[in-house]
Amino acid sequence: MELLKQLCEIHAPSGEEYRMKDFLLKYIQKEKKHWKVKPEIYHGDDFQDCIVLAFGKPRTAVFAHIDSIGFTVRYFNQLLPVGSPDAETGTMLVGEDSLGPIECELDFDKDNHAFYKFGRQIERGTTLTYKIDFREDRSFIQTPYLDNRLGVYIALKLAETLQDGVIAFSCWEEHGGGSVPYLAKFIYEKWQVKQALVSDITWVSDGVEHGKGVAISMRDRNLPRRLFVNRIIEIARKRKVDFQLEVEGMGSSDGRELQLSPYPIDWCFVGAPQHGAHTPDEKVHKKDIKSMLELYTWLMKDL
Amino acid sequence: MELLKQLCEIHAPSGEEYRMKDFLLKYIQKEKKHWKVKPEIYHGDDFQDCIVLAFGKPRTAVFAHIDSIGFTVRYFNQLLPVGSPDAETGTMLVGEDSLGPIECELDFDKDNHAFYKFGRQIERGTTLTYKIDFREDRSFIQTPYLDNRLGVYIALKLAETLQDGVIAFSCWEEHGGGSVPYLAKFIYEKWQVKQALVSDITWVSDGVEHGKGVAISMRDRNLPRRLFVNRIIEIARKRKVDFQLEVEGMGSSDGRELQLSPYPIDWCFVGAPQHGAHTPDEKVHKKDIKSMLELYTWLMKDL
Amino acid sequence: MELLKQLCEIHAPSGEEYRMKDFLLKYIQKEKKHWKVKPEIYHGDDFQDCIVLAFGKPRTAVFAHIDSIGFTVRYFNQLLPVGSPDAETGTMLVGEDSLGPIECELDFDKDNHAFYKFGRQIERGTTLTYKIDFREDRSFIQTPYLDNRLGVYIALKLAETLQDGVIAFSCWEEHGGGSVPYLAKFIYEKWQVKQALVSDITWVSDGVEHGKGVAISMRDRNLPRRLFVNRIIEIARKRKVDFQLEVEGMGSSDGRELQLSPYPIDWCFVGAPQHGAHTPDEKVHKKDIKSMLELYTWLMKDL
Repeated sequence: MELLKQLCEIHAPSGEEYRMKDFLLKYIQKEKKHWKVKPEIYHGDDFQDCIVLAFGKPRTAVFAHIDSIGFTVRYFNQLLPVGSPDAETGTMLVGEDSLGPIECELDFDKDNHAFYKFGRQIERGTTLTYKIDFREDRSFIQTPYLDNRLGVYIALKLAETLQDGVIAFSCWEEHGGGSVPYLAKFIYEKWQVKQALVSDITWVSDGVEHGKGVAISMRDRNLPRRLFVNRIIEIARKRKVDFQLEVEGMGSSDGRELQLSPYPIDWCFVGAPQHGAHTPDEKVHKKDIKSMLELYTWLMKDL
Repeated sequence: MELLKQLCEIHAPSGEEYRMKDFLLKYIQKEKKHWKVKPEIYHGDDFQDCIVLAFGKPRTAVFAHIDSIGFTVRYFNQLLPVGSPDAETGTMLVGEDSLGPIECELDFDKDNHAFYKFGRQIERGTTLTYKIDFREDRSFIQTPYLDNRLGVYIALKLAETLQDGVIAFSCWEEHGGGSVPYLAKFIYEKWQVKQALVSDITWVSDGVEHGKGVAISMRDRNLPRRLFVNRIIEIARKRKVDFQLEVEGMGSSDGRELQLSPYPIDWCFVGAPQHGAHTPDEKVHKKDIKSMLELYTWLMKDL
Repeated sequence: MELLKQLCEIHAPSGEEYRMKDFLLKYIQKEKKHWKVKPEIYHGDDFQDCIVLAFGKPRTAVFAHIDSIGFTVRYFNQLLPVGSPDAETGTMLVGEDSLGPIECELDFDKDNHAFYKFGRQIERGTTLTYKIDFREDRSFIQTPYLDNRLGVYIALKLAETLQDGVIAFSCWEEHGGGSVPYLAKFIYEKWQVKQALVSDITWVSDGVEHGKGVAISMRDRNLPRRLFVNRIIEIARKRKVDFQLEVEGMGSSDGRELQLSPYPIDWCFVGAPQHGAHTPDEKVHKKDIKSMLELYTWLMKDL
């Protein structure tokens, strides 16, 4: 889990994914010699801070967003949310401006506006993220940013054995999106890929529990095409992977932008459930990580 | 009105339009020999559950959405809305899961969350729609799902005499959209079609009445380009079709997605007004159905 | 400032930008002979009511929206907003229907629904805009519709000396958008332009003041890519233009649609701050107009 810990520690709130992009590019360059298939790597000006990996003859694309929620420093000691953070007074935030590294404390006024407490003023536009406190025991991983560093981790593990498929590392997912539209365009036009899986983290709820397997989401705020979801459920059954069916009315993912893109791409969210979404204490059961990777491995073969 | 009744009876909530697609493909294959022009029929993998019919040299496209509102079974006896259903306690809902056909009753708790009442648990993700009760008298048709089976009906009737144009049967309109973007791309790129009409059902209101003619919508939540709307009004006047001008601040349609597509496609909503939108008792005046078909027939000639 | 006054006086609420398009086409035809580089001019059917000017070898595009907020006449004496007008009882509104020119008074009922007071009924769908009252003193310009006639003015002044770049006059910005998607497509596909500046007007706030220089917006409701914003800030510093850094959680612009487009186009909002946004009394400091033009001139050279 050392790789997962490293991923969590990278400061990459939506709009500032470049540090994560740099880390991933180095990691991929170093590791790909051990992978079953060496992928083509697409990045640079036409991809902003995204990366696309193409293995063999792709039929299905995995999307894993590399941004996180956080805060932007406004005027005085005010903070604006990046995405929808959910944290309490006293949460430690980290970042850096031209005067140096920052480690400050989150505070709220009586109207629930967020502020920082720090010995000096922080420069306008500086972004802050949760200070990482990575906790691991026999059953659980707990740390800020399992959403979605765990989805990225699964994609990197999947890459080790992947023969045919695309892995797309996307940006801005936590704050309105904006990269999936051109990633979908690229992937559809280059390989006619019409199937997508969203490697992301969902919620423990009254119907989805820790340790009972990866969640296949039949819907969230958006409705994926049922015929595609049914195929995924069939594969999970046939391959005897532990899984849970999720049915939600809220929440969204890179799937939303695939749904709205001008390409007929089917999508389904497949991911481990967590407790404490968007808090500094996101928690996932190790069994669910294992079955998530297992299911992705089968899906990329069978779809 | 037998065809309209058949259309209403097909279970096709957003995301599960495949049954409607199958019905329409069979209907079109059977009927097209009687049509003035035999259309090219586009469907399959690149169209998900949509169908595109192309007649002659198209200048204008008609969009008719084939999905409906409904419910998804969540956990226990909970229901989530598909689109925005508006129904009361006791409304009969129908569907099917692996254990067999379902006919159950809608209920609400004190927080207005929807539930079902049924003798057994229904499988997660199962969709339910209103049980059809088709009522017809001298003046009115009343049934669930006139929105938008009536828009589909008009498109099929229009097809009988259409010489030049596209008819696009779209999906997911009731729940966030997602097919119009690629349909618009296809239609614009293949035939440079820049004019679109939305064949859908609107509201009886303080300015639009039953039996006074089809409504030409000058705006809803979205603003179509005025110069295009003006041309439609002129044609309706010139051809002496009964019509009413609608001006709304709310509501939306496939027109929204045409507006936002990366193609310069003008659009206008043209449809009969109904009472009881999204309830099991949607009601439309027969005169308004007649003038709707009449106006579409002229518009496809004159635009 | 005669040109700015003329621009303010044109009735062009969202959806009815054609009068502004006509004015701009005439202006550009007349003036371009004095410009350093004569641009190619793109308009017509494939651009609805938009105009694109291309100078030299474009690397960066400036977007200036030509629509304004206003009202649509509904039924009886009811008004619906176009965009989000912010005006008080008694505000004078102007427009025209088939019976002639209209100058009427804005009123509200106790539920804050808007109405008009006028000697006769106004035709359905007629649009009304604020009556122009252009005020100028040594320091300030005050008039309805500085948002965004001032952004258009800056684009036209920039055109006089522009060597390489695109100027795009967009529509519907105040009411949900719909032209930027195809403008972005055109500009990216034709010239591979991946850099965009949004020439629009922002807010005086607790961190942005009158007379302190043009605002470079580090974020609003949307998050532009930080690496691009940083380059703009560096250029402003290097070229010693007066500027202010803006950091907002609300508000949106043509940048939103660039963000969501299927093209990897970086964008940044760069514009003068105003007091009284969307009221009939929008007010901008002349110094901020000057530094806005200055910064655009440098950015189009240095980016």
